[in-house]
Amino acid sequence: MLFKNITILDENIQVKENMYIGITNDKIDYIGKEEPKKKYDEIYDGSGKALMSGFFNSHAHTPMTLMRGYGENMALQEWLEQRIFPFEDKLYGKAVYYGTLLGIAESLKFGIVSTTDMYYFCDDMVKAVIESGVKNNIGRGITNFTDKDIYDLDSFHETKELYNGYNNAENGRIKIDVSLHAEYTSNPKTVKQLAEYMKEIGAGMHVHVSETKFEHEECKKRHGLTPVQYLNSLGLFDTRTTAAHCIWVEDEDVRILADKGVTVASCPVSNMKLASGVCNIPLLLSKGVNVAIGTDSVASNNSLNFIEEIKFFAIANKEKRMNPTLVTPKEAICAATISGAKGQGRNDTGKLAVGLKADLIVLDLMQPNMRPIHNLTNNIVYSASGNDIVMTMVDGKVLYKNGEYTTIDIEKVIFETEKDTNNILQKLK
Amino acid sequence: MLFKNITILDENIQVKENMYIGITNDKIDYIGKEEPKKKYDEIYDGSGKALMSGFFNSHAHTPMTLMRGYGENMALQEWLEQRIFPFEDKLYGKAVYYGTLLGIAESLKFGIVSTTDMYYFCDDMVKAVIESGVKNNIGRGITNFTDKDIYDLDSFHETKELYNGYNNAENGRIKIDVSLHAEYTSNPKTVKQLAEYMKEIGAGMHVHVSETKFEHEECKKRHGLTPVQYLNSLGLFDTRTTAAHCIWVEDEDVRILADKGVTVASCPVSNMKLASGVCNIPLLLSKGVNVAIGTDSVASNNSLNFIEEIKFFAIANKEKRMNPTLVTPKEAICAATISGAKGQGRNDTGKLAVGLKADLIVLDLMQPNMRPIHNLTNNIVYSASGNDIVMTMVDGKVLYKNGEYTTIDIEKVIFETEKDTNNILQKLK
Repeated sequence: MLFKNITILDENIQVKENMYIGITNDKIDYIGKEEPKKKYDEIYDGSGKALMSGFFNSHAHTPMTLMRGYGENMALQEWLEQRIFPFEDKLYGKAVYYGTLLGIAESLKFGIVSTTDMYYFCDDMVKAVIESGVKNNIGRGITNFTDKDIYDLDSFHETKELYNGYNNAENGRIKIDVSLHAEYTSNPKTVKQLAEYMKEIGAGMHVHVSETKFEHEECKKRHGLTPVQYLNSLGLFDTRTTAAHCIWVEDEDVRILADKGVTVASCPVSNMKLASGVCNIPLLLSKGVNVAIGTDSVASNNSLNFIEEIKFFAIANKEKRMNPTLVTPKEAICAATISGAKGQGRNDTGKLAVGLKADLIVLDLMQPNMRPIHNLTNNIVYSASGNDIVMTMVDGKVLYKNGEYTTIDIEKVIFETEKDTNNILQKLK
Repeated sequence: MLFKNITILDENIQVKENMYIGITNDKIDYIGKEEPKKKYDEIYDGSGKALMSGFFNSHAHTPMTLMRGYGENMALQEWLEQRIFPFEDKLYGKAVYYGTLLGIAESLKFGIVSTTDMYYFCDDMVKAVIESGVKNNIGRGITNFTDKDIYDLDSFHETKELYNGYNNAENGRIKIDVSLHAEYTSNPKTVKQLAEYMKEIGAGMHVHVSETKFEHEECKKRHGLTPVQYLNSLGLFDTRTTAAHCIWVEDEDVRILADKGVTVASCPVSNMKLASGVCNIPLLLSKGVNVAIGTDSVASNNSLNFIEEIKFFAIANKEKRMNPTLVTPKEAICAATISGAKGQGRNDTGKLAVGLKADLIVLDLMQPNMRPIHNLTNNIVYSASGNDIVMTMVDGKVLYKNGEYTTIDIEKVIFETEKDTNNILQKLK
């Protein structure tokens, strides 16, 4: 496919107008002002539209679409114990499969090309990812409230089977990360053994860190160390790591995150909605931490509207630190794209450059909310609406265009998720 | 028009499924489970859709669409002095007319049926409101840095002419409010004379109050009173009043706002983006203040995406007061509809009830981000995306449907606003 007359955000997040972008198979093979000599099968006239990298959702629990709006305005513990845990207890593979497909459909609508996920029934998630054509770093969340070795945990064996079966499958679309749920749901032996296993196989890590003040302070009481210091002391950050939230991190923690190249996945909507706090993005960026953006689950968001997430990301720190100059639009877009891809270990995507994967979105600029255009980057971050995305492409394949899906039967998915949700609710009565 | 098979949010913001809603001329004349006996010309099958009151944007400066994204991440004073004031200095009537039409188009896309506006070149705004079919409470912002009587101010005479010419024009669609810009841009004599004039003619008031801590504290230094106490002492709240922002109000202020029936227009996105603070909605509601929602101008928002504004409204206080139970979805919807209409002095709209004006929106529920539906109110507040609105109707007339406008030539409006914007930028060089 050849895009012509299109405005792009280039690899440096600079605006260029009237460009040609050529896609062959799964890669970008041309970017230029001049028409390429090579012939392309399909021409897309991009007049009044913008092309940029798709978004990388760096922390999610996709199947939790099934719990969207189920329990609101509740205190965290009450919400977990009365709503989320009982519902999850009744989950089954088919429900997770359809819940994942629903979340993928929503992701594509909002321009997400790749997600860092943590959940269970991961085989069913893998199936949905393969069929739909998106990218995903899948992690089977590991908890351990016993003194068992990890080698005696089902969740570890599921991780191992997933890794051996699917890591880098589908032309690299699927990656299997090892996923420790959190410090407070495990113990030092588990952390240490997982860190050793990861180093042995070269896998990445996905873990919740310092989401609530309570979690952060309790860890200090238990171990005399913050969660970042504790996990680092056990080697958990020795391979590529995504640490979700990091709201309550301290100065020494920030230094460790920067030194170890840990990606912080900030989830501003969920964090504000659950009253957990606001991650200090300006501080992390100033110290050289790789900062990405996550939606967290829709049970606490309650959408995968990444355009909205980017706006919250750009605005939350302005209020929190009482300074309107904090977090620039360019920093927000970088977090949503380049830094997200880096956090997923995907060095072949996240920006527009020849030779990289064609993981792209097209935005409609002829919407009243996108006009006038003093500065397109400002408009994308502060003015765009989720549905201004009119095309989402992954590995060169159009998966979403003008409200239609090419790989997902959305009516069937809505019907099946509604049926499974009602089925689970019946079991809870 | 007759809506059938549609889910509604009724006048108590309760969900009712499979309903019939009849519209004749500008009013709702039927709501029921049974098919009405009366015949309607047009039938709208509402399967998979929801019908609710349109949104009331309770604080805006609509023509500032022209300054969308013009100057970002700047400190407030620098932003005003280097960007906004110079640009506004070069404005002219035609630019305001098209800028208003662009803002109205954006408003309709995002479900806003009526706006409380403060600006100048109000004749041009009136023209755009009349042509487009929306509702607007228009106020000519009055400032006075001299010791002149208001009767010697051009802005007062413009207000008077607007009031005599257009108040309640177009079947009540247009209301002219008197608009004092703020305490810090006027003086006690001006406030007193405006309050007397308003009482004489029975007009409403629209004023900025305690938006920044600096404004609030300086007023206390100048007058020994908070802005609310000062304005109230001069009689400004003796007629229907909308006070925008009210972020820094104190306990005594809240008591006054409740006693005087003042509507507080909270603008969460603009307030967070400018780092002004977060209005204490739970406190105001608990003391009986009528709380509505505003977008403020797109120069500081930067959109009129009311669905997004409602989500910020519902979430901002959870984080600010570290309590996830604060601001319920029902409170957020009430602020966006019923309380907004009340603040505009529109007692004939803001909810679905027989005999009221048909100022309505239709939401598409077959979008992946709206499924499953555990609770529709939760999904509208936390999960909806701006463009899930597929129809906006004002006074019984469809003004927006499936991305198309019936009264606005959107391509021409985009072309003209872009031309006027460039024209103004040229003059600034």
